[in-house]
Amino acid sequence: MRPTGTIAFALLVHTRDEPGVLHQLTEVMAEHRVNITYVDIVERHDGLSDVYFELEAVADAQALMRDLRALEITRGIDETPSFSRIFGKRIIVMGGGAQVGQVAVGAISEADRHNIRGERISVDTIPLVGEQDLAAAVRSVARLPRVKALVLAGSLMGGEITEAVREIREKGIIVVSLNMAGSVPEAADLVVSDPVQAGVMTVMAVADTAKFDISRQRGRRY
Amino acid sequence: MRPTGTIAFALLVHTRDEPGVLHQLTEVMAEHRVNITYVDIVERHDGLSDVYFELEAVADAQALMRDLRALEITRGIDETPSFSRIFGKRIIVMGGGAQVGQVAVGAISEADRHNIRGERISVDTIPLVGEQDLAAAVRSVARLPRVKALVLAGSLMGGEITEAVREIREKGIIVVSLNMAGSVPEAADLVVSDPVQAGVMTVMAVADTAKFDISRQRGRRY
Repeated sequence: MRPTGTIAFALLVHTRDEPGVLHQLTEVMAEHRVNITYVDIVERHDGLSDVYFELEAVADAQALMRDLRALEITRGIDETPSFSRIFGKRIIVMGGGAQVGQVAVGAISEADRHNIRGERISVDTIPLVGEQDLAAAVRSVARLPRVKALVLAGSLMGGEITEAVREIREKGIIVVSLNMAGSVPEAADLVVSDPVQAGVMTVMAVADTAKFDISRQRGRRY
Repeated sequence: MRPTGTIAFALLVHTRDEPGVLHQLTEVMAEHRVNITYVDIVERHDGLSDVYFELEAVADAQALMRDLRALEITRGIDETPSFSRIFGKRIIVMGGGAQVGQVAVGAISEADRHNIRGERISVDTIPLVGEQDLAAAVRSVARLPRVKALVLAGSLMGGEITEAVREIREKGIIVVSLNMAGSVPEAADLVVSDPVQAGVMTVMAVADTAKFDISRQRGRRY
């Protein structure tokens, strides 16, 4: 167990499953002036619940764990590796299945090369079509943790999807588009015709181990 | 806005970014006896924070929103589509880049066919090697939301990874393994030699729209 200090650490708290559990746990954390950077209710079964926390600014980890253990609802606490340490930066690929698959091949293969050198990049995909569904999914990307870039892989995307692309770019997410019909390519940071290449370039744009500067590539088409 | 009832709904609450925010928000939810099924701290920028909640057993949504808005820290609230509605069931693929890519091609292509018919299946991948790193990643799968199945794609996996496979299977996650050296195939629900086929079969095993019963396939090798 990492003893004290202000470094981030992750905890899995086993509790009874009942309304108010999160309230009681966060009360202890608020008393310790701890920053909760990530929280997830993991498992609920047989009246028990597991709650996962990533924390920052933990001045006294031992005291925090002791106070959490003292709660009547708590059944146990494990320290655990954080998702950032395991899954790292996320790239999301969405659109038509045939093209999403090829972008994934490029992105996974390139992520493999960087992960071997100490990076942590994962590639998440969803085959999804339809203007409204895709626009909602694009917007939701900004609500997912650790997402650095989105690749839109399809043959025709525009309208509401283009609006959603503009919104998430403002929130700092890099958007790469395949060369396709519709207005999405105009709104993207980068347009790439070959899906494998699009996957590779997107990983290069987010990897600290790569020499690829998205700010120099913005607006370009390959 | 969905008015009242006990159906699930999702909220994005914009607040000041300071310790104790989650505590104050969950206090209101505890008072309303609401079940928090998912929570995520989405964005932290310029002293502001966005917190995303998925809730169940909401008896009076209007009153809940009113009480959340009344908090001094709250800057606004949006109702929003839930991740379950957008990304649905998750399949995770991990291991060596070459094979992870091919499993992803099969899984994405098959998920596409089911998603068109109303399913929501997404395919998340991480190229990752090494016994300790992989074992930690396998264990962490049980802490991720909405994961139904894991595919292990590589040429040699055993030891600690096999232990981790047994643990997550006990938590109800289906584990599919490529045919490979090491003890992982023996611990998996299903062993498949072709990576594309492994991806397709895994999606079939979790899709309600497919006629594939994992309980009839357990222990088989293809």
